[in-house]
Amino acid sequence: MNNFKFQCATKIVFGRGAELETGKEVAAISKNILLHFGGGSIKRSGLYDRLVKSLREAGVTLTELGGVQPNPRLDLVKEGIALCREKGIDFILAVGGGSVIDSAKAIALGVQYDGDVWELFEETGKVGEVLPTGVVLTIPASGSEAGNGTVIKNTDVGLKRNVNDEKLRPRFAILNPELTLTLNRYQTACGVSDMFSHVFERYFAPEQNVEYTDRLCEATMKTIIHNGSIACAQLDHYNARAELMWCGTIAHNDFLQAGRTPDFASHKIDHEVNVVCDCAHGASIAVLLPAWAKFVWKHGVQKFVQFAVRVFDVEPNFENPEETALEGIARLEAFYRSIGLPSHLQELGVKRENFATIAKNCKTFAGDQVGNFVKISRADMLEILELAF
Amino acid sequence: MNNFKFQCATKIVFGRGAELETGKEVAAISKNILLHFGGGSIKRSGLYDRLVKSLREAGVTLTELGGVQPNPRLDLVKEGIALCREKGIDFILAVGGGSVIDSAKAIALGVQYDGDVWELFEETGKVGEVLPTGVVLTIPASGSEAGNGTVIKNTDVGLKRNVNDEKLRPRFAILNPELTLTLNRYQTACGVSDMFSHVFERYFAPEQNVEYTDRLCEATMKTIIHNGSIACAQLDHYNARAELMWCGTIAHNDFLQAGRTPDFASHKIDHEVNVVCDCAHGASIAVLLPAWAKFVWKHGVQKFVQFAVRVFDVEPNFENPEETALEGIARLEAFYRSIGLPSHLQELGVKRENFATIAKNCKTFAGDQVGNFVKISRADMLEILELAF
Repeated sequence: MNNFKFQCATKIVFGRGAELETGKEVAAISKNILLHFGGGSIKRSGLYDRLVKSLREAGVTLTELGGVQPNPRLDLVKEGIALCREKGIDFILAVGGGSVIDSAKAIALGVQYDGDVWELFEETGKVGEVLPTGVVLTIPASGSEAGNGTVIKNTDVGLKRNVNDEKLRPRFAILNPELTLTLNRYQTACGVSDMFSHVFERYFAPEQNVEYTDRLCEATMKTIIHNGSIACAQLDHYNARAELMWCGTIAHNDFLQAGRTPDFASHKIDHEVNVVCDCAHGASIAVLLPAWAKFVWKHGVQKFVQFAVRVFDVEPNFENPEETALEGIARLEAFYRSIGLPSHLQELGVKRENFATIAKNCKTFAGDQVGNFVKISRADMLEILELAF
Repeated sequence: MNNFKFQCATKIVFGRGAELETGKEVAAISKNILLHFGGGSIKRSGLYDRLVKSLREAGVTLTELGGVQPNPRLDLVKEGIALCREKGIDFILAVGGGSVIDSAKAIALGVQYDGDVWELFEETGKVGEVLPTGVVLTIPASGSEAGNGTVIKNTDVGLKRNVNDEKLRPRFAILNPELTLTLNRYQTACGVSDMFSHVFERYFAPEQNVEYTDRLCEATMKTIIHNGSIACAQLDHYNARAELMWCGTIAHNDFLQAGRTPDFASHKIDHEVNVVCDCAHGASIAVLLPAWAKFVWKHGVQKFVQFAVRVFDVEPNFENPEETALEGIARLEAFYRSIGLPSHLQELGVKRENFATIAKNCKTFAGDQVGNFVKISRADMLEILELAF
C-alpha cells in the first residue's frame, strides 16, 4: 500500500426533500450567490421554485446564470466570472449534473484569478483563491459534487482539460434521489456508466496489497451494476435511484483510490473523443473501457480474473484463468448493452479519420503516455480506438 | 434507505513516516498545545522525540499530560481541563489509541464548558464550544481518530458514558502502520475485535434496501478478518497492519451507517461490563457479539444468512437457512478464538452476581431498551449475559 492523504469535507444531505435545506446550508456560508444551472428542466420540474423559496427565506440574494450545456464551455464560464465580479458574489450554487457543477467550479477558480482562467486548465497559471461552491444534484453520474476536479471544453482550441485542486471540493452536496426519477433511460444509463468508470479506473491500479480499497471498489461496482439494471428497467424506482446516487458520489471523491495510483487512461482518451463527437461521456466511456481492457488484460491477468469473479460472479476457470479474465470483460460489455449503451464508437458518430486527432490532442504525462496500470503511448491509443470502433 | 447526513472532514495522513508531518498539521491550527498520551511506550519507542522535534521545528509550544489508562478516567480529564485553562491552550494532540483520543476529546469538551464536564456525559449539560483536536494513532481499534464520540469512565459513580457530537471529530489523524508493528498479539487481537464490532453493529440495522452500505460493511469485515488473522500470526507484517489501520478508521467514522440505524446494543451492555471487570473493550465485545447474535438471530434469519455467506463464505443451505445463519455465528466465534480472544465472560473475571449491576447501569433509550435491529430490554440483557458467561 502506498502512503496517501485523503480528506473529503463535503457535507452530504441525502434523501427525500433534502433540497429544502438548501437555504440553511447556503446562508451559513454566503448571502450573495450565483445560482448556476443548465436548461429549463429545473424550472419545469418545480425544483427552481422550491430552491428560490428556500434561499429567499434564508435571506440569500441570488443572481442567475443558466445555459450550461453538456461538456461545459469556457465561454459561459467567462461570462459567470464577469458576473460574479460585477455583483460581488462570493458563493456559487450549482443545480444540475456534472456539467453544471464543473462549470460552477471553473467560475469559482476564475473570479479571483488575475488572468485568463484557461491558463489554469493549461497549467500555465497557478490556482490561488477559489470561491466556495455547493451543489443540488439532479443527475448522479460525474461525482463532481464531492470531487476535487472540473473538466471544461474550450471550443476555440478544440480541447477538453481538467483542473484538480482540493479547494474545488464543494462545501455541501444535496442529494435527493426523487429529483432523478424523471431522468430517461438513456440519461440514466449514461450516469451509471460514468460512475462505474470512476471506480473501474481506480480498481485497475498497479499496486499490490491494497485489499481494502479493492474490496470497497468491488462493493461499489456490484451495487452500481445491480441498481443500474433496476433503474434502467424501472425509472421511478426510488431505492435503486438512491443506491446509484450515493454510489456516484463515493465513486469519485478519491476514497476509492486510497493507497494506490488510479489508471484513468481511458478518461484521458475519452476527453478527446468527446471533443470530436460531443456525445455523452457516459456513452463513449462505455465503449472505451472494454476496448482498453482488451488491449491491456494480458499485462495483469490475475487482476482481470479478480474483477470477473468478484464483480461479475464469474465461476473461475482455474485451469484457464485467461478465459475467466476475458469472460469478465465480456460481461461488462453485455451489461452496457443491457442498459441500452453503445458498443462501438461508430454509433457515436466518431470516424476512423478522427483517431489521429484524438491521439494527438490527448493530454499525456511524463514519457508522452497516459495510464498507470499499463502505460499507454499515442500509438497504443490508435489500437484502443480501433478496438472500440 | 433512510434520509441521512454525513460529513467527516478529518484529514487522513497515512503511511510510513507520516508522523513527521505532525508539526506542519498542528501549526496550521495552533501554536500552543496539550500533548496528551498514556504511559511511557511513546518515549521508549522514540515516537515522542520525533513528535517533539517536528512540533518545535514548526514553532509549536507544548505542555505534556501523560498517564491516560485504558477505559480513560474522568479525574485525568479534569486535570487536563485545568491545565488547558491555566496555560491558555487551544488545541489537544492525542498520541496513542482510543483511550488517549477519548480523554483528549473529553478535555476538549470541558475547557470552555462552564460547569462539571461530566454533566455533558450525563446529558444534563449541553455541548458548546469544543477545542480542536488532532491524533497520532498508535493502536488501530477504536476509530475515535475520525469519529464524533468519546467514552469516559467515572470511577466515583461506577459508570461509563459517551458524548457524540460532530465538533468532536479530530481535525487530522496521522496513521503510520509502522507505529503498530510493536503491538503484541493480544493488543492486536483486541484492536481487530474492536474495529470489527463497529462494522458488525452497523451491519445489523433494521432497514431494508441499503445494499451499498451492506456491501461496504461486508468489504470492511472481510478485510479485517483476513488481515487480522495475518497480523496476529505475523506481528511485523506491514501490509496487514496497514489494511487494519485504514479499516479501523473507516469502521467508526459513520460512513458505514449511511441510510440506516445502527444497533449498538452490545456496546451499551459492554460499557457496563468494562466497568465491572476493567478488561479491554476488544476482549469483552468479542464475547458479547456472538451472545447477542445467538439471542436475536431468529428475528432476522435472512440478514444472518447474508452475513454468513458474504462475510464468512459459508456455502448457503437453501433448504435450511437457519443452519447457515448459525454457521455464520459459529465462524465468528471461531475467528475470535483463532486470534486468541476469550469466548466467555468468566475468562475476563466477570461473575454471575455482576449481571444485575450491568443490566441496571446500562444506559437505555426510550422504552428502557437498547438496540435497533432488535429491541433489548434489561431482562433480555440478563439472558445475553448468561449466553456470554
